Amino acid sequence: MTIPRDHPRYRSLVARESLASCCREGIVSLEGLAAHGRGEAFDYLLGERTTESALMAEKTAAAFLLCARNPVISVNGNTAALAAGEIRDLQEATGAKVEVNLFHRTEERIEKIRRLLEDNGVRVLEGEAQRLLALSHDRAYCLVEGIFSADVILVPLEDGDRCQVLAGMGKTVITIDLNPLSRTARAATLTIVDELTRALPNITRFSHSLRQEESLELITVHDNAVLLREALGEMRRRLGDALD
Amino acid sequence: MTIPRDHPRYRSLVARESLASCCREGIVSLEGLAAHGRGEAFDYLLGERTTESALMAEKTAAAFLLCARNPVISVNGNTAALAAGEIRDLQEATGAKVEVNLFHRTEERIEKIRRLLEDNGVRVLEGEAQRLLALSHDRAYCLVEGIFSADVILVPLEDGDRCQVLAGMGKTVITIDLNPLSRTARAATLTIVDELTRALPNITRFSHSLRQEESLELITVHDNAVLLREALGEMRRRLGDALD
Repeated sequence: MTIPRDHPRYRSLVARESLASCCREGIVSLEGLAAHGRGEAFDYLLGERTTESALMAEKTAAAFLLCARNPVISVNGNTAALAAGEIRDLQEATGAKVEVNLFHRTEERIEKIRRLLEDNGVRVLEGEAQRLLALSHDRAYCLVEGIFSADVILVPLEDGDRCQVLAGMGKTVITIDLNPLSRTARAATLTIVDELTRALPNITRFSHSLRQEESLELITVHDNAVLLREALGEMRRRLGDALD
Repeated sequence: MTIPRDHPRYRSLVARESLASCCREGIVSLEGLAAHGRGEAFDYLLGERTTESALMAEKTAAAFLLCARNPVISVNGNTAALAAGEIRDLQEATGAKVEVNLFHRTEERIEKIRRLLEDNGVRVLEGEAQRLLALSHDRAYCLVEGIFSADVILVPLEDGDRCQVLAGMGKTVITIDLNPLSRTARAATLTIVDELTRALPNITRFSHSLRQEESLELITVHDNAVLLREALGEMRRRLGDALD
């Protein structure tokens, strides 16, 4: 199906098609597809646009990544399917390592996602994953020189358990999550309530423009509870508008 | 994966697992899985419970079905996967015909869904589907003695286009849709903003209890715009509570 470019919901429809096609190829899990649907609903309530508070969070994220000693971007199936090119640009702008990290982990899916990322110019961290996180099953796996030793970690579309464990290890955890009520959104150090393919280019842009700044550390000062309240307030306003 | 019965979101998690498994079997489409995710987000905002206004809509739906000359329940992949047993009970209570009707229509999927329904005791309408609705592609297909000639039609989880066309044909269209802002919700004669497996048993229960009533027609008097506003208001309140 070809979606006309002038369709008001063009970006959203293209993203959905791309995820469904990656699901057929085994890159995106069935659970990932349902999770994307949940995100769509929350994005709809945001008006499918980057709010002012999300933009501020994206600037803060860029400052965190630039200040980091060992920044890592954790990529799962949905992120790779939706934004491989955007991940490459962010890696170039920040020098962050990229590690593939899956909730529904199989070696086959890891390989497919790695290939998709590399085809888009991403340098993917190699190595033997070990059970290093305090989580059950396969979710415990990560790389010593990657997620395990990262001081700042960007985990878009993460699950709540892993987000909590990473934050509990003292890491600065930045997440991109459209549901401001989710456990992930509440457990992260910094939550960007925005759609992935809008958020990543903004962080990349800020990473370029902030390079000259001397007061990067100051820019990282933020209040995540306030950011979440702003996002909830936006959604509430939009539901209210629909009532009029 | 076994989900513990005392998990606070047990019903929601079981539903998702069941849909993913039906997706692997070809009963639920990939698009259906993403659509379910969108519904989950709105149900989350409702507090995953039947609101008072939804219960009133369910009572009204029962009255419409009991008053009908030729009531039909239109069943798609998601509905069959989530609620085959509930459809059987509603059919028994109201005498409605059940027709399989798909957005992503293939004979193979129609057959699989029919078998799933029949295995659960549903009597599925047979016949040769024809292009009878003013819609493009496969969505135009339905049965003359079913959807085409129905005066009252229950279409849970329907798409906006088809809902508009059915309403435009002068039918009483009852839908079950968790998004009160959707085109389907706004185009239907009566919109039940509730989760499918909560809504269907309620309609069945009302169908039994209303049988004795003499003033069924009176019960069908309703204002759909008011029902939608109530649902929006509930979601807005919940987002507001989270702000406190």
